[in-house]
Amino acid sequence: MTIVMAATGPSPRERLVGSAAELIQRRGVSGVGLRAVVAHARAPRGSLQHYFPGGKNQLVTEALAHADRVGGHPLRRGVAAGDTPTEVFAGWCRWWRRRLASTDYAAGCPLVAAVADDAGVPAARDALMSWQAEVAGVLVRSGYSAERAASLASVMVSAVEGAVVLARAQRSLEPLDAVEREVCVLLTR
Amino acid sequence: MTIVMAATGPSPRERLVGSAAELIQRRGVSGVGLRAVVAHARAPRGSLQHYFPGGKNQLVTEALAHADRVGGHPLRRGVAAGDTPTEVFAGWCRWWRRRLASTDYAAGCPLVAAVADDAGVPAARDALMSWQAEVAGVLVRSGYSAERAASLASVMVSAVEGAVVLARAQRSLEPLDAVEREVCVLLTR
Repeated sequence: MTIVMAATGPSPRERLVGSAAELIQRRGVSGVGLRAVVAHARAPRGSLQHYFPGGKNQLVTEALAHADRVGGHPLRRGVAAGDTPTEVFAGWCRWWRRRLASTDYAAGCPLVAAVADDAGVPAARDALMSWQAEVAGVLVRSGYSAERAASLASVMVSAVEGAVVLARAQRSLEPLDAVEREVCVLLTR
Repeated sequence: MTIVMAATGPSPRERLVGSAAELIQRRGVSGVGLRAVVAHARAPRGSLQHYFPGGKNQLVTEALAHADRVGGHPLRRGVAAGDTPTEVFAGWCRWWRRRLASTDYAAGCPLVAAVADDAGVPAARDALMSWQAEVAGVLVRSGYSAERAASLASVMVSAVEGAVVLARAQRSLEPLDAVEREVCVLLTR
């Protein structure tokens, strides 16, 4: 999907995808109705059917691809800047902390919500695997074997996703601090 | 809550709680309707209102407390048996692997679903914190400082919860294998 940003701001279609992602990260997939998405996006009635003839499935799939771009951006930016694995991971943890703090712990990861609600799982899987591939890539470039890099990358993505859940539940950034600290120990062995 | 097991099997009330937990771990909280719970439990119509005058909130809260007992059991059993931190964690990972495999990756953790769907969060928080306390306790007994034990326990619970999400999405036990392997590295430094 190509998004063209007009000078006048996001199109109704983009607003619908962004609103769906925004609501899913707060309430899960099953808890978000199409009417709520249209209202949140301030989109014209009927626009959902126009832009998303595949219905809620299509909208959720696109919202999860959007979540992949947004949540994967700090990872990809760090990788592109040539950061070390520890720096890339710290940057990602920092992004999640900011996001949790700025939403008063209301927003989690839409990919986790999709898997938990068994809705849009293929798109969530693609995003989670692409994040692991980014992390594994930077680990391999810093000298880890492909096998160990895949193992570490899987743990780093698992730990962040789990820590975001714990952080929301406990209304505390400590789980993300702990994950950043202990992964740093693991990487500097 | 005290559960009394009759010789004839679980009571309708217990069946309703168990069915709610079973459905929540597969479809999330928002995706599970009260009718589906009654049907799954083969409970008499009207029994929900009889046993759960607080409605879905009460049922979800009790289902999450049930999930705490079930998902925390392998942890608590290992702790009670005097296992080392590595053994306790390995036993917990083994339990999750068996559960994922036996449900063909359909069942995740109801606590994660509750947080993702923003429903029943206090009960989910209590369970997640009680799991962290179990893990931290065994770490302290094996010589870690209280501070480091809390940090490691938070990471171990985060990593398992995240790995269960990745495992479901990827239909693979590898994320749990990786978490067990890397946490073992972290604990044997």
